[in-house]
Amino acid sequence: MTDLTRADLEARDLADPLRAYRSFFELREGLIYLDGNSLGVLPHGVAERVADVVCREWGCDLITSWNKNDWMGLAPRIGAKLARLIGAAPGEVIAADSTSINIFKLLTAALKLRPSRRVILSEKGNFPTDLYMAQGLIDLLGGTYELRLVEDGADLSGALDQDVAVVMLTQVDYRTGRMLDMAATTQAAHQTGALVLWDLAHSAGAFPVDLNGSDADFAVGCGYKYLNGGPGAAAFLYVAERLQDAINPALSGWLGHEAPFAFDGDYRPAPGIARHLVGTPPVLSFAAFDQALSVFDTVDMGLVREKSKALSDLFIQLVESRCAGHGLTLASPRDAAQRGSQVSFGSDNGYPIMQALIAQDVIGDFRAPNLMRFGFTPLYIGYADIWDAVERLRIILETCAWDTEAFKQRSAVT
Amino acid sequence: MTDLTRADLEARDLADPLRAYRSFFELREGLIYLDGNSLGVLPHGVAERVADVVCREWGCDLITSWNKNDWMGLAPRIGAKLARLIGAAPGEVIAADSTSINIFKLLTAALKLRPSRRVILSEKGNFPTDLYMAQGLIDLLGGTYELRLVEDGADLSGALDQDVAVVMLTQVDYRTGRMLDMAATTQAAHQTGALVLWDLAHSAGAFPVDLNGSDADFAVGCGYKYLNGGPGAAAFLYVAERLQDAINPALSGWLGHEAPFAFDGDYRPAPGIARHLVGTPPVLSFAAFDQALSVFDTVDMGLVREKSKALSDLFIQLVESRCAGHGLTLASPRDAAQRGSQVSFGSDNGYPIMQALIAQDVIGDFRAPNLMRFGFTPLYIGYADIWDAVERLRIILETCAWDTEAFKQRSAVT
Repeated sequence: MTDLTRADLEARDLADPLRAYRSFFELREGLIYLDGNSLGVLPHGVAERVADVVCREWGCDLITSWNKNDWMGLAPRIGAKLARLIGAAPGEVIAADSTSINIFKLLTAALKLRPSRRVILSEKGNFPTDLYMAQGLIDLLGGTYELRLVEDGADLSGALDQDVAVVMLTQVDYRTGRMLDMAATTQAAHQTGALVLWDLAHSAGAFPVDLNGSDADFAVGCGYKYLNGGPGAAAFLYVAERLQDAINPALSGWLGHEAPFAFDGDYRPAPGIARHLVGTPPVLSFAAFDQALSVFDTVDMGLVREKSKALSDLFIQLVESRCAGHGLTLASPRDAAQRGSQVSFGSDNGYPIMQALIAQDVIGDFRAPNLMRFGFTPLYIGYADIWDAVERLRIILETCAWDTEAFKQRSAVT
Repeated sequence: MTDLTRADLEARDLADPLRAYRSFFELREGLIYLDGNSLGVLPHGVAERVADVVCREWGCDLITSWNKNDWMGLAPRIGAKLARLIGAAPGEVIAADSTSINIFKLLTAALKLRPSRRVILSEKGNFPTDLYMAQGLIDLLGGTYELRLVEDGADLSGALDQDVAVVMLTQVDYRTGRMLDMAATTQAAHQTGALVLWDLAHSAGAFPVDLNGSDADFAVGCGYKYLNGGPGAAAFLYVAERLQDAINPALSGWLGHEAPFAFDGDYRPAPGIARHLVGTPPVLSFAAFDQALSVFDTVDMGLVREKSKALSDLFIQLVESRCAGHGLTLASPRDAAQRGSQVSFGSDNGYPIMQALIAQDVIGDFRAPNLMRFGFTPLYIGYADIWDAVERLRIILETCAWDTEAFKQRSAVT
């Protein structure tokens, strides 16, 4: 490993079956963007599609666009495109609202489906908004509901009892990239009669997800990370077909009505997944997401997963060999099979080091107290990029520019 | 009135102090767009702004845009722009989610603020999604809550008792344009201890709204009608400053947290109106809305109201004089002071007549069972437009093209 050269990695890039996808994205020369786990980069064609929606569909066709340009169909169309990426049937996924709102929808659905149970079970370190939405719902319902939290990564069996209505888990931890076993966890929950709600924020588009194969009940996810749907892109939700008809949505809006334009006074849910729509969707943002997903039309997610593991293994190996002695400690699982498409290193100087890296055009991000996060997006990151990123990191660490007063003051300002 | 000519109206257009605003909008020659109450037209500058957000802010600046290009500030900035139009302080309004979701937020807030009361009071003919959201909430809470409905426009005093927690009303009826007296209704509700939630979907941007002057508690509204914010533009919500600190949101998402990027496990509401944010906002759609609102920077809403009344009075007078004998009956209040910026006529042939009008480039819309709706947007509609619209209507009615089998078949297909 130590005698690996940049030339070796250039050769790997040339042999990479996903190499051509880099040309699908707007990516400035020199930039090494390792933050696609936070905001994916702009795919070609999205700017043109959005301009067309603004100028022609809105500007010229105006109100007729709801039918003529099928604005009404955007939400299920996006859902159908996502379905293939997450192991679901097209009618099990729909784009709607934000991840947080969708968590609320599916938690209420789960509690209604398990009326005698009172516990939402999750991990202490679940992404905060997931926990917040559960807290808000429990506060709203009053009384006897409980958010039961286990330590991160703990065996759930000790906490799974007959009171648990729903287990709410994020498959990939946003700090460490640790990945849970979806099939095994779902099966364990089902054995006690609980439902499972998966947050796929750091899963969808990052590797093949198999909701149907895992017998998953519910899932949510967001469009703006590995799916490159644009800033604040629509979230999505999944409901297993076998559960759909039994759910009467708590957020019962007119677009989830059986006949929205009948303007009936009483809510009647639309058939299937469409009942989880609420209000009028943000068409410009939906159109960008819809267009961005066309990148994935021909993508083999198995290849994405293999390259993701290779990139992140390479990154760990190069950091640990070439940046040794600078106090960086791996915070992610060492086994690629246990990780999503992200690697985190802890460092007491994580914040200024990350600022210095960003100044050198290597974009990752920092999460308190000490984590530097690096996301690996195989469609637009190559092996030589990993070499270059680690080289820039090594130079920063060796020159200690990040450790000077001048640098600290500058990075505090920006 | 009967000897009014098109030349008279051209003269009124020349003297119109709002005339210059027409040039702020993309509006094809010949099109008379009387559907701004459903989807406002595209203001100049929006396409450029959206392209800049896509190509530069997302494409180049990527994740840094949340701060560098102040994506985080979009929601309160839009709110502050709206505040002036609806009689609120800047810190009382914020852009968020959809109207339906915002109704849910504020209904839950109202019920929590009046814990001993069990009734949401509304009108039978309120916009369906308002009623649906209340139904969903009551079903979620179970038990003793009630959605009490009065006939449209009925005096509320008979229904306002000590059980009413919140009165939920849409100020302007989406079918007839009938406008409620916000101040008087709010006062009546307050006298019984109830709160009031106003839906401003057909008010904001259409005429001066005075939430503070009416002592209003809560309001919601949507950005894509008279505010021209684009298809599915963000909705907004208003909470009177005096109530803000007492509300612990039920939809408690991370962007409404006091410190979203501290990633604490426990929800603590942000100060003021920001606590009503939930998830990551759709930035492209927010940017379009933000840009569209700049049209209003210099607009005197008093002038908008005066011209709106004049346009709609003129429309009624011309239809009733020049289209007499064709069975069109006014479905809106005859007194302009009782109307929003919309006029509806009932007709047994309303659907095919509207189809024929649309084919003649006069865009209104149809609502079952028999209403033809026409919205008047003084910033881009002139007096001569009204003449031309009614002339096209007259010709359609007199030639009866809409009544032929051939036309009916054609309009059924399109």
